[in-house]
Amino acid sequence: MARVLIPLAEGFEELEAITIIDLLRRAGIEVVTAGLTPGPVTASRKTVVIPDIDLDAVADETFDMVVLPGGLPGAQHLDEDERVHRLLQRHASLQRYTAAICAAPKVLANAGLLDGRSATGYPGVLVSQAFPRVQVLDQPVVVDGKVITSRGPGTAMDFALQLIESLTDRSCRNQVENALVRP
Amino acid sequence: MARVLIPLAEGFEELEAITIIDLLRRAGIEVVTAGLTPGPVTASRKTVVIPDIDLDAVADETFDMVVLPGGLPGAQHLDEDERVHRLLQRHASLQRYTAAICAAPKVLANAGLLDGRSATGYPGVLVSQAFPRVQVLDQPVVVDGKVITSRGPGTAMDFALQLIESLTDRSCRNQVENALVRP
Repeated sequence: MARVLIPLAEGFEELEAITIIDLLRRAGIEVVTAGLTPGPVTASRKTVVIPDIDLDAVADETFDMVVLPGGLPGAQHLDEDERVHRLLQRHASLQRYTAAICAAPKVLANAGLLDGRSATGYPGVLVSQAFPRVQVLDQPVVVDGKVITSRGPGTAMDFALQLIESLTDRSCRNQVENALVRP
Repeated sequence: MARVLIPLAEGFEELEAITIIDLLRRAGIEVVTAGLTPGPVTASRKTVVIPDIDLDAVADETFDMVVLPGGLPGAQHLDEDERVHRLLQRHASLQRYTAAICAAPKVLANAGLLDGRSATGYPGVLVSQAFPRVQVLDQPVVVDGKVITSRGPGTAMDFALQLIESLTDRSCRNQVENALVRP
């Protein structure tokens, strides 16, 4: 069974994070949510979530995928945390998946994971002045090798379904998707 | 400013609940989440949320809208709680909005709020044998007077946007929707 780490920082975008957590668990994937600080974490629209564990407890473990939810100041906190950058770089060097949505692809970019790659993010997040080596695409979800990025709350469901497909297979993704009764 | 109550029971569907909470707060609507029991509540896919308040503390207040998230056993817990039925019936009698998604329209039906009305829910929830006086529509969101219902996780965003439009106006809904960068 695939195992996925989702770091949760103060100000994370709760719709994005919860959509990813919920759908991946529906697919039978083990999801570990890890707070950057001990105790409950307050999301960007003030929902308070108790993560599964503190990031310190799993920062040296290796997962099949690390997924960063967006939100501000959540993504900024992720970007300022050296443990997050080290986790991303170590997982990339081990050919594991790294993924980010909304404001968080900037964290992947600042960790050097998007150099020479195609990616997407919330409009204005991956501006070419700051990240000239990233090819930014206006697509809901972009898969480039083991790096998967997405645009925002409105693409979180498609993003989560792509993560499921990448970690399992098309059949598992379809099974989860069909149960959602999308329009 | 509109004020909305969202009861949270053990086993509530977190994607649905959080999508509604997040989007309504983006629209400037005051959302109060209320746990059926004191303390943290564990959702259907195991995210643990700390509600704003205990339901007992607000059970006698009047809101502009009461919204029930789905999920099992969450919706079943809502249905077995007399405070929830009384809240729904009192708000309906005061011409306030009541709304439910996924498995939770059954709670509205059992509280007598769907008699003679059109509604929708997760497939199989509003079966005609059990609820012969409800006209079930296969639409993502159904608005019938002050009662709004929806089908499931895949329609939660459309449902939340309709709740915003009903509580504010089309312009506010559009503003929130545009910021989501939907495909």
